[in-house]
Amino acid sequence: MSYIQHARVDGPLVMIGFGSIGRGTLPLILRHIGFEPGQFTVIEPSGGYAGLMAEHGVKHLQRALTPDNLRETLVGLFPDGKGLIVNLSVDVDSIEVMELAQELNVLYLDTVVEPWPGFYFGSPLPNAERTNYPLREKVRELGRKYQGGPTSISCCGANPGMVSWLLKEALLELAKDTGIAAAPKSREDWADLSMRLGVKGVHIAERDTQVSARPKPAGVFVNSWSVDGLLSEGYQPAELGWGTHEKKLPPLGHRFDFGAGYAIWIDKPGVDTRVRSWCPDVGPQFGLVVTHNESLSIPDYYTVWQGDQAVYRPTCHYAYHPCNDAVLSLYEANGAGVLQAEKHILTEAEITGGGDDLGVFLYGHAKGAMWYGSRLTIEETRALAPYQNATGMQVTSAVLAAMVWAIENPTAGFVEADEMDHTRCLFVQRPYLGRVEKHYTDWTPLKNRINRFAEDRDDEDPWQFTNFLVA
Amino acid sequence: MSYIQHARVDGPLVMIGFGSIGRGTLPLILRHIGFEPGQFTVIEPSGGYAGLMAEHGVKHLQRALTPDNLRETLVGLFPDGKGLIVNLSVDVDSIEVMELAQELNVLYLDTVVEPWPGFYFGSPLPNAERTNYPLREKVRELGRKYQGGPTSISCCGANPGMVSWLLKEALLELAKDTGIAAAPKSREDWADLSMRLGVKGVHIAERDTQVSARPKPAGVFVNSWSVDGLLSEGYQPAELGWGTHEKKLPPLGHRFDFGAGYAIWIDKPGVDTRVRSWCPDVGPQFGLVVTHNESLSIPDYYTVWQGDQAVYRPTCHYAYHPCNDAVLSLYEANGAGVLQAEKHILTEAEITGGGDDLGVFLYGHAKGAMWYGSRLTIEETRALAPYQNATGMQVTSAVLAAMVWAIENPTAGFVEADEMDHTRCLFVQRPYLGRVEKHYTDWTPLKNRINRFAEDRDDEDPWQFTNFLVA
Ligand SMILES: NC(=O)c1ccc[n+]([C@@H]2O[C@H](COP(=O)([O-])OP(=O)(O)OC[C@H]3O[C@@H](n4cnc5c(N)ncnc54)[C@H](O)[C@@H]3O)[C@@H](O)[C@H]2O)c1
Ligand SMILES: NC(=O)c1ccc[n+]([C@@H]2O[C@H](COP(=O)([O-])OP(=O)(O)OC[C@H]3O[C@@H](n4cnc5c(N)ncnc54)[C@H](O)[C@@H]3O)[C@@H](O)[C@H]2O)c1
Repeated sequence: MSYIQHARVDGPLVMIGFGSIGRGTLPLILRHIGFEPGQFTVIEPSGGYAGLMAEHGVKHLQRALTPDNLRETLVGLFPDGKGLIVNLSVDVDSIEVMELAQELNVLYLDTVVEPWPGFYFGSPLPNAERTNYPLREKVRELGRKYQGGPTSISCCGANPGMVSWLLKEALLELAKDTGIAAAPKSREDWADLSMRLGVKGVHIAERDTQVSARPKPAGVFVNSWSVDGLLSEGYQPAELGWGTHEKKLPPLGHRFDFGAGYAIWIDKPGVDTRVRSWCPDVGPQFGLVVTHNESLSIPDYYTVWQGDQAVYRPTCHYAYHPCNDAVLSLYEANGAGVLQAEKHILTEAEITGGGDDLGVFLYGHAKGAMWYGSRLTIEETRALAPYQNATGMQVTSAVLAAMVWAIENPTAGFVEADEMDHTRCLFVQRPYLGRVEKHYTDWTPLKNRINRFAEDRDDEDPWQFTNFLVA
Repeated sequence: MSYIQHARVDGPLVMIGFGSIGRGTLPLILRHIGFEPGQFTVIEPSGGYAGLMAEHGVKHLQRALTPDNLRETLVGLFPDGKGLIVNLSVDVDSIEVMELAQELNVLYLDTVVEPWPGFYFGSPLPNAERTNYPLREKVRELGRKYQGGPTSISCCGANPGMVSWLLKEALLELAKDTGIAAAPKSREDWADLSMRLGVKGVHIAERDTQVSARPKPAGVFVNSWSVDGLLSEGYQPAELGWGTHEKKLPPLGHRFDFGAGYAIWIDKPGVDTRVRSWCPDVGPQFGLVVTHNESLSIPDYYTVWQGDQAVYRPTCHYAYHPCNDAVLSLYEANGAGVLQAEKHILTEAEITGGGDDLGVFLYGHAKGAMWYGSRLTIEETRALAPYQNATGMQVTSAVLAAMVWAIENPTAGFVEADEMDHTRCLFVQRPYLGRVEKHYTDWTPLKNRINRFAEDRDDEDPWQFTNFLVA
């Protein structure tokens, strides 16, 4: 089988981290990205997959990056002021690597703004400062400093990442279906379109239905992607873009007292903050408001300003139904008040069924609500590429698309997925997304209840956050 | 193998309902209860297990009891003013059957105060009246009317039921371990002992670890015992006995404005009201505050009165960790706001591992906290008797014990488990309980947290309900 080579790296290609996402990205790079033989290095402390790297002619630098060895390591790997870094690790400070990449004139991309260890757990910081808002504000600040520098894409996996591209397609679909003229080019155009469509909010609505034949073992945290990644963000406070239509803050909700104020945080862990949400496979379901960069970048990008007054902004947040084994793992961890010592990521070999539905759920517009996204089963995934499950492939194919875009747009400076060409990116990614589907529904968060209990309910506007939140 | 016959029914033996508990009770009756040949009838609308009844010489009256046919049916079955009714059905009004049993001079027992359909779901009643407190008050009221009548045991399965007997053993153990003299006889003695021991509260602390090899199918509610039973009580408001040491009501908590006021209710469904609790298999875990009769009978029984002033009462409630498939089923139902149409009870054949730890967790005393209860695995269960899993056997063996006690004490009128002879009952039941174990722990609900978030925390008294409740 022969594959389209979408782009070619000039200089060294360095991947940091070879976990579930790194391994899954490998075959996509080999198929679709050109590079000089011997110029592809993976920095990964574990020796567990050294054989896989060797088999594909990838060099293995077996090392954990630390504040002490980061500069020395990367300077050594990029002697010629060219090349590309794909950061798919945990525990390596993204911002430091981004700054170093500017200095070394090297392209960069990652899937999350990750700090050095000590931020997510055991931090002395107050909860307001353990959110993603300050991290993102810092990255945006640097972006202003490094304008026109080598392209440095922050937070571009499936979500954050791909969902920003799907949102643009979804808005165009909605415009078409409701007879509204739309040819957005600039950020302002997109924000204006979203306002004209009357979109009050966007869930990043995901349902992972992957299951294995082995019942979740007690004392083991099981997930379909990085356990560390989910725990890190899951035990930050819940965080969400805060729409201009919202009438009041939720219980334990707080605004930020700096920056443009596009988001709020809730003084509860994201993995224990539930909203009513909707996905095509199952219909209405719980989603967890785990903090994510797209919950910040989307409301920021789609704000309509009149002077320094925000006249329109959608509410936006993650509404995540992880795989059932992760639901049980969270129930176990939250119940014990202690994280499990053992961790396990479900492999494509042990998963016996299910898939991942990941999309955007746009609500409050003329047609009520619409889900638009990727529906990918484990069987489809296995047929498409090795070393990953369905959740992984939605991420790795977004990483692939971001690599292509970075190489094609090498002097864009600091960007997020919202600022990239969604058409080009989805063109690269689409073969790996299973079915991209659009679903309208008449569901609202006021719709179903099992008996009636006390709730803070707004019957006048079904789309208020208070109706989504399960207190 | 020969078994001890503990007692003999004089007259007809009628079982109402032949679900998971009815079927599991059958072999225990055949082993341990004598009755006239041809005098054992099961009233059960489903024909699904007619073969099993026939095989054991049990008559099958295939009929659903209704308000219209109840009297006629039971009058026909008990022509001679003697016999025994074991009610193990859902959807049959316990109070009506109890009154009829008084009229017919027939012994009676059930495992829950069940109403006719229409109370649990779709009821026009306000939530305060959808609780168990008014139901129990009505039964107690009737008890005063029928004093000295044929014995009528209300709510005597594992819990409610057996746990009241275990609590008495646990109190005696605690007295022994802390060097406190104890020879309680009357209700007042038991309440006084609990007060002298400094027991602030009691969780009915259960962990069901039974699993099957089939991942929970979407759209199916899976449990290890009656799905209807769990849903019925689970979507009543949470309810708990309210200790005299409690400083303040929980959010959405309400007192009752009639009766002795030994309990409160919370305007949330029990299956979505979580507390921090503890079981020996796993240590700290979530428990659900599903309303149960023992959460009412225990605080009532253990109140120390001075005049009309309650000077001591323990907090008491269920803290239930159902099997993982039920945890997932509840997550699915609550997330959708709709109950699944399909239901499934895990059979002993499909369960591949795990068991049920069901006991009492006494806290706030000189030794901190103690769990005392039955630990029964599925393997042990299969070796002990057919047609049931571990959860079932803890219930069916309590039903057996209650039958024996009713026959041996035929004119006790209306009683609950707290008022029966726990020594005799546990003697009958113990061979079916696996290991009855005692565990002390230094855990308190203040102990473990994953990061710090807003909470209403009382550091002065770790045993306040506010510290257990996860808001
Ligand atoms: N945006 C998205 O859609 C998305 C989706 C999934 C994962 N992610 C992110 O991608 C990253 C990788 O996810 P994953 O599932 O592969 O995680 P993983 O836990 O499977 O792998 C992480 C890898 O990083 C390596 N690592 C740890 N410390 C390191 C160090 N100091 N230096 C270099 N490498 C180190 C680990 O050994 C491991 O192999 C995570 O940060 C995760 O949050 C983003
Ligand atoms: N106290 C305890 O520890 C405890 C534990 C488990 C179950 N229970 C109670 O025991 C009862 C039975 O539990 P299960 O697991 O066997 O339930 P199940 O759902 O398996 O069986 C209930 C049976 O009742 C029958 N039934 C329904 N309507 C009827 C009617 N109108 N007339 C006669 N029979 C009717 C059903 O056909 C079914 O066979 C439930 O009320 C449950 O709440 C109590």
